[in-house]
Amino acid sequence: MNYKLNKSEVLYRGKVFDLQIDEITYDSGNNGIREIAVHAGGAVIVPITNEGKIVLVKQFRYPFQKYMLEMPAGKLNKGEDPYLCAVRELEEETGYKADKVEKLGAIATTPGFCTEILHLYIATGLTPGRHNREEGELTMEVYEYSFEDVERLISEGELYDAKSICAFYMAYNKLRN
Amino acid sequence: MNYKLNKSEVLYRGKVFDLQIDEITYDSGNNGIREIAVHAGGAVIVPITNEGKIVLVKQFRYPFQKYMLEMPAGKLNKGEDPYLCAVRELEEETGYKADKVEKLGAIATTPGFCTEILHLYIATGLTPGRHNREEGELTMEVYEYSFEDVERLISEGELYDAKSICAFYMAYNKLRN
Repeated sequence: MNYKLNKSEVLYRGKVFDLQIDEITYDSGNNGIREIAVHAGGAVIVPITNEGKIVLVKQFRYPFQKYMLEMPAGKLNKGEDPYLCAVRELEEETGYKADKVEKLGAIATTPGFCTEILHLYIATGLTPGRHNREEGELTMEVYEYSFEDVERLISEGELYDAKSICAFYMAYNKLRN
Repeated sequence: MNYKLNKSEVLYRGKVFDLQIDEITYDSGNNGIREIAVHAGGAVIVPITNEGKIVLVKQFRYPFQKYMLEMPAGKLNKGEDPYLCAVRELEEETGYKADKVEKLGAIATTPGFCTEILHLYIATGLTPGRHNREEGELTMEVYEYSFEDVERLISEGELYDAKSICAFYMAYNKLRN
Protein backbone atom coordinates (compact mmCIF):
# COMPACT_ATOMS: atom_id res chain seq x y z
CA MET A 1 0.00 0.00 0.00
CA ASN A 2 1.25 3.46 -0.83
CA TYR A 3 0.98 6.03 1.90
CA LYS A 4 3.14 8.68 3.49
CA LEU A 5 3.96 8.51 7.20
CA ASN A 6 3.61 11.96 8.74
CA LYS A 7 4.16 11.16 12.40
CA SER A 8 4.68 8.07 14.56
CA GLU A 9 4.39 8.31 18.33
CA VAL A 10 4.43 5.81 21.19
CA LEU A 11 1.67 7.09 23.49
CA TYR A 12 2.06 4.44 26.17
CA ARG A 13 4.84 1.98 27.03
CA GLY A 14 3.29 -1.03 28.74
CA LYS A 15 4.31 -4.31 30.30
CA VAL A 16 2.29 -6.34 27.78
CA PHE A 17 2.15 -3.96 24.81
CA ASP A 18 2.96 -0.41 23.73
CA LEU A 19 0.41 1.83 22.06
CA GLN A 20 1.79 3.42 18.87
CA ILE A 21 -0.19 5.99 16.88
CA ASP A 22 0.81 6.72 13.27
CA GLU A 23 -0.57 9.59 11.23
CA ILE A 24 -0.50 8.83 7.52
CA THR A 25 -1.61 10.33 4.19
CA TYR A 26 -3.05 7.97 1.58
CA ASP A 27 -2.31 8.31 -2.15
CA SER A 28 -5.75 9.91 -2.51
CA GLY A 29 -4.59 12.78 -0.31
CA ASN A 30 -6.87 11.75 2.57
CA ASN A 31 -5.35 11.50 6.02
CA GLY A 32 -5.65 8.50 8.33
CA ILE A 33 -4.69 7.34 11.80
CA ARG A 34 -3.28 3.88 12.52
CA GLU A 35 -3.46 2.55 16.07
CA ILE A 36 -1.02 -0.27 16.77
CA ALA A 37 -0.59 -2.47 19.85
CA VAL A 38 3.12 -3.27 19.65
CA HIS A 39 3.61 -6.70 21.25
CA ALA A 40 6.79 -8.78 21.57
CA GLY A 41 5.01 -12.05 20.68
CA GLY A 42 4.94 -15.33 22.50
CA ALA A 43 4.88 -19.11 22.43
CA VAL A 44 1.99 -21.59 22.66
CA ILE A 45 2.47 -25.23 23.56
CA VAL A 46 0.34 -28.28 22.77
CA PRO A 47 1.55 -30.65 25.51
CA ILE A 48 0.70 -34.30 24.81
CA THR A 49 1.04 -36.79 27.67
CA ASN A 50 2.34 -40.34 27.26
CA GLU A 51 -1.33 -41.43 27.45
CA GLY A 52 -2.13 -39.24 24.42
CA LYS A 53 -4.00 -36.55 26.36
CA ILE A 54 -3.67 -32.80 25.73
CA VAL A 55 -2.80 -30.66 28.75
CA LEU A 56 -4.85 -27.45 29.02
CA VAL A 57 -4.84 -24.70 31.62
CA LYS A 58 -7.77 -22.73 32.97
CA GLN A 59 -6.94 -19.22 34.06
CA PHE A 60 -8.57 -15.93 34.92
CA ARG A 61 -8.58 -13.57 31.93
CA TYR A 62 -8.87 -10.05 33.17
CA PRO A 63 -10.29 -8.42 29.99
CA PHE A 64 -13.27 -10.81 30.12
CA GLN A 65 -13.42 -11.19 33.93
CA LYS A 66 -13.74 -14.93 33.32
CA TYR A 67 -11.84 -18.18 33.66
CA MET A 68 -10.88 -19.54 30.24
CA LEU A 69 -9.56 -22.90 29.03
CA GLU A 70 -6.43 -22.53 26.88
CA MET A 71 -3.23 -24.20 25.74
CA PRO A 72 -0.31 -23.16 27.96
CA ALA A 73 1.35 -20.06 26.54
CA GLY A 74 3.41 -17.05 27.48
CA LYS A 75 5.00 -13.84 26.30
CA LEU A 76 8.55 -13.73 25.00
CA ASN A 77 11.02 -12.03 27.26
CA LYS A 78 12.98 -9.36 25.41
CA GLY A 79 15.14 -11.09 22.77
CA GLU A 80 14.09 -14.56 23.96
CA ASP A 81 14.15 -17.54 21.55
CA PRO A 82 10.49 -18.66 21.19
CA TYR A 83 11.57 -22.30 21.67
CA LEU A 84 13.05 -21.47 25.09
CA CYS A 85 9.91 -19.51 25.97
CA ALA A 86 7.80 -22.58 25.10
CA VAL A 87 9.96 -24.86 27.28
CA ARG A 88 9.82 -22.38 30.17
CA GLU A 89 6.09 -21.69 30.01
CA LEU A 90 5.22 -25.38 29.70
CA GLU A 91 6.92 -26.16 32.99
CA GLU A 92 5.82 -22.97 34.76
CA GLU A 93 2.16 -23.39 33.87
CA THR A 94 1.59 -27.16 33.76
CA GLY A 95 4.38 -28.54 35.92
CA TYR A 96 5.58 -30.75 33.04
CA LYS A 97 8.99 -30.93 31.36
CA ALA A 98 9.14 -32.29 27.80
CA ASP A 99 11.70 -34.56 26.10
CA LYS A 100 10.77 -33.20 22.70
CA VAL A 101 9.47 -29.75 21.72
CA GLU A 102 8.79 -29.39 17.97
CA LYS A 103 7.74 -26.28 16.03
CA LEU A 104 4.28 -26.39 14.48
CA GLY A 105 4.16 -22.96 12.89
CA ALA A 106 3.39 -19.36 13.79
CA ILE A 107 0.23 -17.23 13.77
CA ALA A 108 -0.65 -13.55 13.78
CA THR A 109 -3.38 -13.13 16.42
CA THR A 110 -4.90 -9.80 15.31
CA PRO A 111 -2.99 -8.46 12.29
CA GLY A 112 -5.32 -5.49 11.82
CA PHE A 113 -4.05 -3.64 14.88
CA CYS A 114 -1.41 -5.69 16.72
CA THR A 115 2.10 -6.94 15.91
CA GLU A 116 1.78 -10.09 18.06
CA ILE A 117 3.15 -13.30 16.49
CA LEU A 118 2.71 -16.53 18.46
CA HIS A 119 5.04 -19.46 17.81
CA LEU A 120 3.32 -22.83 18.16
CA TYR A 121 4.94 -26.01 19.47
CA ILE A 122 4.04 -29.64 20.22
CA ALA A 123 5.61 -30.99 23.40
CA THR A 124 5.88 -34.77 23.98
CA GLY A 125 7.71 -37.08 26.34
CA LEU A 126 6.28 -35.28 29.37
CA THR A 127 7.67 -35.88 32.86
CA PRO A 128 6.87 -34.07 36.11
CA GLY A 129 8.74 -30.77 36.61
CA ARG A 130 8.02 -27.81 38.81
CA HIS A 131 5.24 -25.20 38.70
CA ASN A 132 6.36 -21.62 38.93
CA ARG A 133 3.48 -19.29 38.38
CA GLU A 134 3.42 -15.54 38.25
CA GLU A 135 1.31 -13.37 40.50
CA GLY A 136 -2.13 -13.38 38.85
CA GLU A 137 -1.66 -16.97 37.64
CA LEU A 138 -1.92 -18.51 41.11
CA THR A 139 -5.48 -19.72 40.58
CA MET A 140 -4.54 -21.51 37.32
CA GLU A 141 -5.78 -25.10 37.03
CA VAL A 142 -4.44 -27.91 34.83
CA TYR A 143 -6.68 -30.34 32.90
CA GLU A 144 -6.00 -33.28 30.59
CA TYR A 145 -8.34 -34.05 27.71
CA SER A 146 -8.39 -36.51 24.81
CA PHE A 147 -8.22 -35.11 21.25
CA GLU A 148 -11.91 -35.97 20.84
CA ASP A 149 -12.75 -34.07 24.03
CA VAL A 150 -10.87 -30.98 22.81
CA GLU A 151 -12.67 -31.12 19.47
CA ARG A 152 -15.98 -31.28 21.35
CA LEU A 153 -14.98 -28.41 23.68
CA ILE A 154 -14.25 -26.28 20.58
CA SER A 155 -17.46 -27.19 18.75
CA GLU A 156 -19.52 -26.51 21.90
CA GLY A 157 -17.85 -23.14 22.47
CA GLU A 158 -16.24 -24.12 25.80
CA LEU A 159 -12.75 -23.61 24.36
CA TYR A 160 -12.94 -20.39 22.35
CA ASP A 161 -9.42 -18.99 22.62
CA ALA A 162 -8.15 -18.46 19.06
CA LYS A 163 -4.50 -19.44 19.59
CA SER A 164 -5.55 -22.68 21.30
CA ILE A 165 -7.92 -23.60 18.46
CA CYS A 166 -5.21 -22.93 15.85
CA ALA A 167 -2.61 -24.90 17.82
CA PHE A 168 -4.98 -27.82 18.35
CA TYR A 169 -5.89 -28.24 14.69
CA MET A 170 -2.34 -27.69 13.47
CA ALA A 171 -1.08 -30.32 15.93
CA TYR A 172 -3.87 -32.70 15.00
CA ASN A 173 -2.97 -32.42 11.31
CA LYS A 174 0.74 -32.85 11.95
CA LEU A 175 0.19 -36.01 13.99
CA ARG A 176 -2.33 -37.39 11.48
CA ASN A 177 0.05 -37.02 8.49
CA MET B 1 -9.45 -14.29 40.92
CA ASN B 2 -9.62 -12.04 43.96
CA TYR B 3 -8.18 -8.57 43.60
CA LYS B 4 -9.16 -5.03 44.42
CA LEU B 5 -9.50 -2.43 41.67
CA ASN B 6 -7.88 0.81 42.77
CA LYS B 7 -8.19 2.86 39.58
CA SER B 8 -9.40 2.35 36.01
CA GLU B 9 -8.59 4.89 33.35
CA VAL B 10 -9.06 5.10 29.57
CA LEU B 11 -5.78 6.60 28.39
CA TYR B 12 -6.65 6.69 24.69
CA ARG B 13 -9.94 6.48 22.79
CA GLY B 14 -9.23 5.07 19.34
CA LYS B 15 -11.04 4.22 16.14
CA VAL B 16 -10.13 0.52 16.42
CA PHE B 17 -9.61 0.13 20.17
CA ASP B 18 -9.36 2.08 23.41
CA LEU B 19 -6.46 1.68 25.82
CA GLN B 20 -7.66 1.10 29.41
CA ILE B 21 -5.22 0.90 32.32
CA ASP B 22 -6.36 -0.66 35.60
CA GLU B 23 -4.41 -0.51 38.83
CA ILE B 24 -5.18 -3.45 41.09
CA THR B 25 -4.07 -5.00 44.39
CA TYR B 26 -3.82 -8.79 44.60
CA ASP B 27 -4.88 -10.75 47.69
CA SER B 28 -1.18 -11.00 48.58
CA GLY B 29 -1.07 -7.22 48.98
CA ASN B 30 1.10 -6.78 45.87
CA ASN B 31 0.03 -4.19 43.34
CA GLY B 32 -0.35 -4.80 39.61
CA ILE B 33 -1.21 -2.98 36.40
CA ARG B 34 -3.56 -4.43 33.76
CA GLU B 35 -3.35 -3.02 30.24
CA ILE B 36 -6.48 -3.70 28.16
CA ALA B 37 -7.18 -3.02 24.50
CA VAL B 38 -10.96 -2.50 24.57
CA HIS B 39 -12.30 -3.62 21.19
CA ALA B 40 -15.93 -3.80 19.98
CA GLY B 41 -15.42 -7.17 18.26
CA GLY B 42 -16.18 -8.22 14.72
CA ALA B 43 -17.37 -10.85 12.28
CA VAL B 44 -15.42 -13.31 10.12
CA ILE B 45 -16.93 -15.04 7.10
CA VAL B 46 -16.01 -18.32 5.40
CA PRO B 47 -17.57 -17.73 1.98
CA ILE B 48 -18.03 -20.94 -0.03
CA THR B 49 -18.79 -20.63 -3.73
CA ASN B 50 -21.21 -22.88 -5.61
CA GLU B 51 -18.09 -24.67 -6.94
CA GLY B 52 -17.01 -25.46 -3.36
CA LYS B 53 -14.15 -22.95 -3.27
CA ILE B 54 -13.34 -20.73 -0.28
CA VAL B 55 -13.08 -17.00 -1.00
CA LEU B 56 -10.10 -15.30 0.67
CA VAL B 57 -8.87 -11.72 0.55
CA LYS B 58 -5.33 -10.44 0.48
CA GLN B 59 -4.85 -7.07 2.10
CA PHE B 60 -2.14 -4.78 3.44
CA ARG B 61 -1.74 -5.17 7.20
CA TYR B 62 -0.18 -2.05 8.57
CA PRO B 63 1.27 -3.51 11.82
CA PHE B 64 3.31 -6.00 9.77
CA GLN B 65 3.81 -3.79 6.68
CA LYS B 66 2.84 -6.85 4.62
CA TYR B 67 0.04 -8.21 2.46
CA MET B 68 -1.72 -11.08 4.22
CA LEU B 69 -4.19 -13.73 3.07
CA GLU B 70 -7.29 -13.91 5.30
CA MET B 71 -10.97 -14.74 5.46
CA PRO B 72 -13.11 -11.63 4.86
CA ALA B 73 -13.84 -9.91 8.18
CA GLY B 74 -14.67 -6.61 9.73
CA LYS B 75 -15.28 -4.69 12.91
CA LEU B 76 -18.72 -4.32 14.40
CA ASN B 77 -20.20 -0.87 14.17
CA LYS B 78 -21.44 0.35 17.57
CA GLY B 79 -24.35 -1.88 18.62
CA GLU B 80 -24.34 -3.78 15.32
CA ASP B 81 -25.65 -7.37 15.14
CA PRO B 82 -22.63 -9.56 14.20
CA TYR B 83 -24.76 -11.34 11.59
CA LEU B 84 -25.44 -8.05 9.77
CA CYS B 85 -21.76 -7.16 10.05
CA ALA B 86 -20.88 -10.50 8.39
CA VAL B 87 -23.37 -9.91 5.54
CA ARG B 88 -22.06 -6.36 5.00
CA GLU B 89 -18.36 -7.21 5.13
CA LEU B 90 -18.78 -10.20 2.82
CA GLU B 91 -20.20 -8.01 0.07
CA GLU B 92 -17.91 -5.03 0.71
CA GLU B 93 -14.73 -7.08 0.64
CA THR B 94 -15.41 -9.91 -1.82
CA GLY B 95 -18.20 -8.51 -3.99
CA TYR B 96 -20.42 -11.52 -3.16
CA LYS B 97 -23.87 -11.65 -1.62
CA ALA B 98 -24.93 -14.86 0.15
CA ASP B 99 -28.27 -16.69 0.21
CA LYS B 100 -27.38 -18.31 3.53
CA VAL B 101 -25.19 -17.06 6.38
CA GLU B 102 -24.90 -19.50 9.30
CA LYS B 103 -23.19 -19.01 12.67
CA LEU B 104 -20.15 -21.22 13.29
CA GLY B 105 -19.15 -19.97 16.72
CA ALA B 106 -17.12 -17.19 18.33
CA ILE B 107 -13.50 -16.79 19.36
CA ALA B 108 -11.47 -14.56 21.67
CA THR B 109 -8.46 -13.42 19.64
CA THR B 110 -6.10 -12.38 22.48
CA PRO B 111 -7.82 -12.85 25.83
CA GLY B 112 -4.73 -11.89 27.84
CA PHE B 113 -4.95 -8.21 26.96
CA CYS B 114 -7.86 -7.54 24.58
CA THR B 115 -11.66 -7.78 24.78
CA GLU B 116 -12.10 -8.62 21.08
CA ILE B 117 -14.61 -11.39 20.30
CA LEU B 118 -15.00 -12.42 16.67
CA HIS B 119 -18.21 -14.09 15.50
CA LEU B 120 -17.64 -16.69 12.79
CA TYR B 121 -20.03 -17.47 9.92
CA ILE B 122 -20.24 -19.72 6.86
CA ALA B 123 -21.76 -18.03 3.80
CA THR B 124 -23.15 -20.12 0.93
CA GLY B 125 -25.32 -19.56 -2.13
CA LEU B 126 -23.00 -16.78 -3.35
CA THR B 127 -24.04 -14.43 -6.14
CA PRO B 128 -22.28 -11.32 -7.46
CA GLY B 129 -22.92 -8.16 -5.44
CA ARG B 130 -20.99 -4.93 -5.22
CA HIS B 131 -17.56 -4.15 -3.75
CA ASN B 132 -17.43 -1.20 -1.41
CA ARG B 133 -14.05 -0.90 0.18
CA GLU B 134 -12.80 1.52 2.76
CA GLU B 135 -9.84 3.78 2.24
CA GLY B 136 -6.83 1.60 3.02
CA GLU B 137 -8.58 -1.49 1.60
CA LEU B 138 -8.42 -0.31 -2.03
CA THR B 139 -5.53 -2.63 -2.89
CA MET B 140 -7.40 -5.69 -1.51
CA GLU B 141 -7.43 -8.72 -3.84
CA VAL B 142 -9.87 -11.65 -3.87
CA TYR B 143 -8.82 -15.29 -4.34
CA GLU B 144 -10.68 -18.60 -4.47
CA TYR B 145 -9.11 -21.78 -3.14
CA SER B 146 -10.22 -25.37 -2.63
CA PHE B 147 -10.38 -26.72 0.95
CA GLU B 148 -7.23 -28.76 0.21
CA ASP B 149 -5.44 -25.62 -1.00
CA VAL B 150 -6.37 -23.72 2.18
CA GLU B 151 -5.14 -26.61 4.32
CA ARG B 152 -1.83 -26.55 2.42
CA LEU B 153 -1.56 -22.74 2.72
CA ILE B 154 -1.96 -23.11 6.50
CA SER B 155 0.53 -25.96 6.85
CA GLU B 156 3.07 -24.10 4.70
CA GLY B 157 2.66 -20.88 6.73
CA GLU B 158 1.25 -18.83 3.81
CA LEU B 159 -2.03 -18.33 5.66
CA TYR B 160 -1.07 -17.51 9.25
CA ASP B 161 -3.89 -15.25 10.42
CA ALA B 162 -5.37 -16.83 13.57
CA LYS B 163 -9.05 -15.96 13.00
CA SER B 164 -8.88 -17.38 9.45
CA ILE B 165 -7.30 -20.64 10.65
CA CYS B 166 -9.96 -21.03 13.36
CA ALA B 167 -12.78 -20.23 10.94
CA PHE B 168 -11.43 -22.63 8.30
CA TYR B 169 -11.19 -25.63 10.63
CA MET B 170 -14.49 -24.92 12.35
CA ALA B 171 -16.21 -24.65 8.94
CA TYR B 172 -14.48 -27.79 7.71
CA ASN B 173 -15.70 -29.75 10.75
CA LYS B 174 -19.24 -28.41 10.46
CA LEU B 175 -19.48 -29.38 6.79
CA ARG B 176 -17.89 -32.79 7.42
CA ASN B 177 -20.38 -33.73 10.15
